[in-house]
Amino acid sequence: MSDRVPVLKIGDILLVSIQIDLEDQMVLDLQDDLSQQIVATSARGVVIDISALEIVDSFVGRMLATTAAISRVLGAETVVVGMRPAVAMTLVELGLSLGGVRTALNLELGLGYLRRAQVSPPASP
Amino acid sequence: MSDRVPVLKIGDILLVSIQIDLEDQMVLDLQDDLSQQIVATSARGVVIDISALEIVDSFVGRMLATTAAISRVLGAETVVVGMRPAVAMTLVELGLSLGGVRTALNLELGLGYLRRAQVSPPASP
Repeated sequence: MSDRVPVLKIGDILLVSIQIDLEDQMVLDLQDDLSQQIVATSARGVVIDISALEIVDSFVGRMLATTAAISRVLGAETVVVGMRPAVAMTLVELGLSLGGVRTALNLELGLGYLRRAQVSPPASP
Repeated sequence: MSDRVPVLKIGDILLVSIQIDLEDQMVLDLQDDLSQQIVATSARGVVIDISALEIVDSFVGRMLATTAAISRVLGAETVVVGMRPAVAMTLVELGLSLGGVRTALNLELGLGYLRRAQVSPPASP
């Protein structure tokens, strides 16, 4: 195995499936890879699947928010999909509601959202 | 993290991204999850992404062949995508050419193949 999370491409959407507990360097590598892929492929959307994660703590929450912010600056919208119900409950109890990150129930709904979002022009900030 | 590889769904295609070295139990769990998902979602195709794998040995090769065979029996065709050039060279040198498994360069080409394959009726064995 490599210590990098692969970035997959579906049309103009990039897909990242997070399956293991990320360490600091892996997060930096992922953000680096993802940024480069967004630029290289002119991606308009990013889907981050966290269905394998049983725990989403403040570190992961911050990683998701930072990654979404980096993608946004590069013109790609991010949707986090696959959050488990138990994870959602714990997040809210901890006061982490992932405010800046859009979420969808699963990959399919996330892809659907991004495709619809691309039909209409991006809203001005 | 959980010790299961997530099975994602895109339309009637299931996507499995293998990112870590699989142990025996994880392979069994994956094949179990995948079979159940194929039945539950009436999936017609399976894409297994191995772009994160730096080494594909006979264990992984056999796992891919078995998984593809199980899926085929359930009516879903399997495409393995994302193999690194070095992995391909090593596989052939080892005499493992993944004969029974269809491959494509990346996720996008794999999805395209499966969508085309579904237009025409499956060939008789």
